[in-house]
Formats: sequence, C-alpha cells, structure tokens
Amino acid sequence: MKRLGKYTFTFESAPAILSGAGSVGKAEGEGPLAHEFDFINENDGVGASTWEKAEASLVRQAVTLAIDKARLTPAEIDVAFAGDLLNQCTASTFGFRELQIPLAGLFGACSTFALALFMAALFVDGGYAKHALAEASSHFCSAEKQFRMPLEYGGQRPQTAQRTVTGAGACIVGAKGTGPRIVRGCVGRITDMDVSDPANMGAAMAPAAAATIGEYLLDTKTVPEDYDLILTGDLGSVGAALMRDLLRSDYGCDPGAVHNDCGLMVFDAKKQDVHAGGSGCGCSAAVFSTKILRELSNGTLSRVLFAGTGALMSPLTTLQGESIPCICHAVELAGGERRL
Amino acid sequence: MKRLGKYTFTFESAPAILSGAGSVGKAEGEGPLAHEFDFINENDGVGASTWEKAEASLVRQAVTLAIDKARLTPAEIDVAFAGDLLNQCTASTFGFRELQIPLAGLFGACSTFALALFMAALFVDGGYAKHALAEASSHFCSAEKQFRMPLEYGGQRPQTAQRTVTGAGACIVGAKGTGPRIVRGCVGRITDMDVSDPANMGAAMAPAAAATIGEYLLDTKTVPEDYDLILTGDLGSVGAALMRDLLRSDYGCDPGAVHNDCGLMVFDAKKQDVHAGGSGCGCSAAVFSTKILRELSNGTLSRVLFAGTGALMSPLTTLQGESIPCICHAVELAGGERRL
Repeated sequence: MKRLGKYTFTFESAPAILSGAGSVGKAEGEGPLAHEFDFINENDGVGASTWEKAEASLVRQAVTLAIDKARLTPAEIDVAFAGDLLNQCTASTFGFRELQIPLAGLFGACSTFALALFMAALFVDGGYAKHALAEASSHFCSAEKQFRMPLEYGGQRPQTAQRTVTGAGACIVGAKGTGPRIVRGCVGRITDMDVSDPANMGAAMAPAAAATIGEYLLDTKTVPEDYDLILTGDLGSVGAALMRDLLRSDYGCDPGAVHNDCGLMVFDAKKQDVHAGGSGCGCSAAVFSTKILRELSNGTLSRVLFAGTGALMSPLTTLQGESIPCICHAVELAGGERRL
Repeated sequence: MKRLGKYTFTFESAPAILSGAGSVGKAEGEGPLAHEFDFINENDGVGASTWEKAEASLVRQAVTLAIDKARLTPAEIDVAFAGDLLNQCTASTFGFRELQIPLAGLFGACSTFALALFMAALFVDGGYAKHALAEASSHFCSAEKQFRMPLEYGGQRPQTAQRTVTGAGACIVGAKGTGPRIVRGCVGRITDMDVSDPANMGAAMAPAAAATIGEYLLDTKTVPEDYDLILTGDLGSVGAALMRDLLRSDYGCDPGAVHNDCGLMVFDAKKQDVHAGGSGCGCSAAVFSTKILRELSNGTLSRVLFAGTGALMSPLTTLQGESIPCICHAVELAGGERRL
C-alpha cells in the first residue's frame, strides 16, 4: 500500500510540477502579488458578456498558458482535474469546452485546487498519466451574485467575511521533467463544528484545516518546524488564527512562524477593502500556481505543506438552518529536484 | 503506462466490486426493478423536512448498506468518491457528514457514478486504497425545484424530457475479495453539438456517449458484439436512439442488440408517466449497484461496458443562451472472477 499512517497517500515517484500559470482580475492585480501573476485582466469582465462567461475565460487563460509553458499541446494532457464554485461547476465545463482534454470534474469548494493537484500527482505516480492538469477558478462577481447579493445592492458585509478572488490557476504535473515534486498527499474528511454563519467561513473551515494538518503531521512523524511553509488556502485572518489555536490545543503543535494563508497573501488588507482576506477556489489556485511554484523552483522554499480548505454549504442549506460542513485536502511539495 | 490506445486506462489488478446497494423512492419502487433495490422509501420525503435533506438521507442509506454488505466499517474505507446534481453538491456532503470517510467530491452530472467507479478502481488498482467507495444520488423533487419548476406549479414537460430518479447507489471496490471486476475505464472529453434545449438532454448527451463508446471500442480493438451489455446511463429513449445512429455513422458499428440504458430500465414507460425515461445521478447509480452488479455476480452477464453520460449545463447557462456541453465516462466490468 502506497500509504503512511491513517490518512496519508505517498507518491514514491515524486511527480514533478512542470509548469503553472495564474490569471487574475483587477483587484488581485493591485495587490502585493501583482508581479507574480501571468495575466492581470484590467477589467473583471474579461471581454465576456456575463460574469460566469468571464470566469470561464479565466479558466481558458490559465489552462492554455500552463500547457504552453510546459511546451505541450492539449492533446498531450492525459487527464485534467478541475472545479469551481458555480452551480453545476460551469466555469470549468465552459472553460474546458473546446480543449478536448479528458476531464474529471471535482467539487471541494475552496479546497478544489489542492484536491486537483493531489489527483494529478496520483494519476502520474500510479503510471496512469504522463501529463495531468490541475485547475480551479473563482470570480468575485459571479460568486457574490450566486452566494450573497447582486453587486448593485451595495450590501455591507461583516469584517469576518472574505472577498472571493477573481482568478484561475493551473499546473501541469508530469512523470518526467524538472520542477518541484509532489511527494505525499491527503484526502480530507468532513468536519462540522456547528458554525452556521456564511459570513464567517474562516471559522467554519478552521477545524477541518487543523484536523487534516494535525493528522498529516502524525502520519508523517513531522513537526511544523520541518516545513519552510505550511500554506492554507483560504482561511483568512479569522480562520487562520483559529486554526493555529486548534492545532495547539488538539495536536500540541504550533505552526506559528511557518504558517501562511493564500487568503492573507493575495490582498493588502490595510489598503484594499477585503475584510478578513481572500477566498474562492481561484485564490489558492492562482497563488500556488505562480508565487509558491516559483519559490519552490528557485530554492527559496524547499518543503511546503499545502492544505486547501473548503466550506461545502450552499445558500439553500444555510436557509434550511444547516451548519457548514468543511473539508481540507493537502499535498506536500519538495523544492527543485529533492525527493523523499 | 497503464494505458491502451488514446483514452483508455487499464486496471491490471482488476479490482473487485465487493458490494453494492441502491436506495430509491416510491415511483422507482413501483417500476420494473422494484425487486432489485435494497431500500424502497414509501415516501419520497424519507422522513426529512426538505427534499434536499431527503436526498442526503438516501445517500446515507446506500452508503451505510454497501459498507455493511462488504462486512466493513466506515473506518476501513480509505477514500470515497461521490457527487450529485444539487448546487454545491450538498446531498453528498450532508450524506457523508457524520461518516468520517476521506471524501473526494466529484461533479459530472448524471455521469458521476461512472466517474466515481472509475476513480475507486484506479485508487485500488494503483495500490493507494484497500477499499474505495463510489456513490451518487439524485431526487426528483430537489431536481425539479432547482432545475425546472416548483412541483406545485404542475408544469407540463415535453415528451423528450426525462424524469429524475429519486435514488442513490453505492459500491465498495476492494483489492482483495470476490466480486465482479473493473478491468478498464475511460475519462470522457466534453462534447457539445450545439443542442440547447434543457428538456431534451438525451439529444445533447448522445454525441458524448457515442464519442466515448466509439473511442473505447477503437482503443480496445473490440466490437459491440464482444459485450453482453453496453449500458448507458441515462440517455432515455430519445438519446439512446440518437446514440446508436451516431455510433453507426461515426464509428461504423451497431450496438443494437447489446445496448440498454438505465433510464429505460428503471421505469415502465407505458405505465408510468416518465416521458423519455429516467435520469439523474441516482438513476445509473441505483440500477448499476443492484441489478447489474447482481447479474455480473451470478454469471448472467460476463462482460459489460458501462458508460455514464452527463449534461454539464446549469439553469443559468441556459438562460444565458449557451448550448449544453456533455461528457461520458466509462468503465468495463468482467463478471465473477474473470480477469483480462
């Protein structure tokens, strides 16, 4: 069995991430990671007639650029894993519509990119694919319209709320070639600690993040200090603090110095009106596929645990009085050519 | 590479389906497969306060029974693949909420169960899981409410429309043990032939089914007559006829005598008011996990190609004038202990 401990899958061949690309919107292009992204769309409409079609355009931008960067063609991608937040995951479907790539649709809310990367690594490691693609997207305007209020209402949101990132990120994982390695991973279990406020999803997701990271550390017999970075995506400021508290109380470890969160990295909370930070499938997808991948490639980072978190509610389940079930999927990355 | 031809994945260890269970609603329990299902809920409310919670209850029924039948506990399931039609796939999330099983959410509309079975087989074949679970669900009332009209409107639907099955199906795939074998599979590509009528999804999905089945036959150098059954799920009467036409014209083969469709099997079209037949993720999930699995086990069937089809639109994409992108994922089954 290619397993370690209770929940950890091992990828003995350590598949390489051959390339990555991130395409984002205007606000993300005004944030601290502006210089990292491949595409910054000056207008969040991305030349499309609706927000949903704009999100599908972001998907196409990220996917085609990631394939180009790996010097491949769509026909050389054996399988793609993709997902988004829209009802029936239509940003992914319409983004991939013309590409003729075998497509396995995923749903994991904001954990989707980590799950997609896990799947791509497993298919390559198992010898089922030479090249696998992982992608995820979100769009501030399509998400606000679907999950909260039409933008035109100008609704006020509490400080615990996060801003959905307009962006898509894609990575190509390959059996041969150079690049950061995916060495292990973990599929999360649903955790529901009875948080029911959809304007505070960081608090809802924190226990899922703590459970996955805590069990991963136990399975791998590692401590936070073994990593250069434990990267969550996307807990925001409220959820990140709660997650660190839970790891201390439940698992007796403190990721303090090595922990960061994609939702805290993508915007400048002091200058940009983003409340608790960024969120959405596209947040960790775009941040991971650009900045993190670059730092793993150039040696700035050599060991990273990337844990994507998702709040698996819908507006309807909230109206029906349900709490918010959450999940966290994780992959461990090794910089450059390092293998386990 | 564990591959054959252009699109076919091979599972050399031929993982076994250790058990299956199907739980359905009242109309399905009055149809020709009534004697096949494990649970027939006399009331489609399944004792829950909303249709969505009822669907989550169907998920729990099918999952827990499939685990019981395999003489396992939830803690022995290494990974589950599940999905449904509800926005943000909440039937799966809430159905699995208390089970503490690592859960990878899938989205493939009505193709979800075939994709889940493919994933479960690959994880077991690759040595990543001892036991993997595949599950999918749908509910007539939650689907009508979300995709079409509230039931109370009593809206008329055209004869090309299909009736969403109220049901869930689950299978346990294992590395050891007896049962029908999953020997190969295929992840589909999006096919969109510009059909835009959401009341005729059979026509929209037929080209995707023909493309996946046609390429699968080419990859494996087989002809329809090599199979006891080529089972689509769920094209209904309109889509099934179109799919056979397309296989004849595009691939020069005729699956006539060996083709059947879960949507045509689950209801009695003459006696039940179901128009073009059944549909929904739960249709092929419940039919496959009961009748088909039983016939593969007892030798009635020895070689089956199961091709799940999905229409990947949302009500919003239809309102925005988009055609319906479709997909078809396939797995090949071998009866009893037979291996390739």
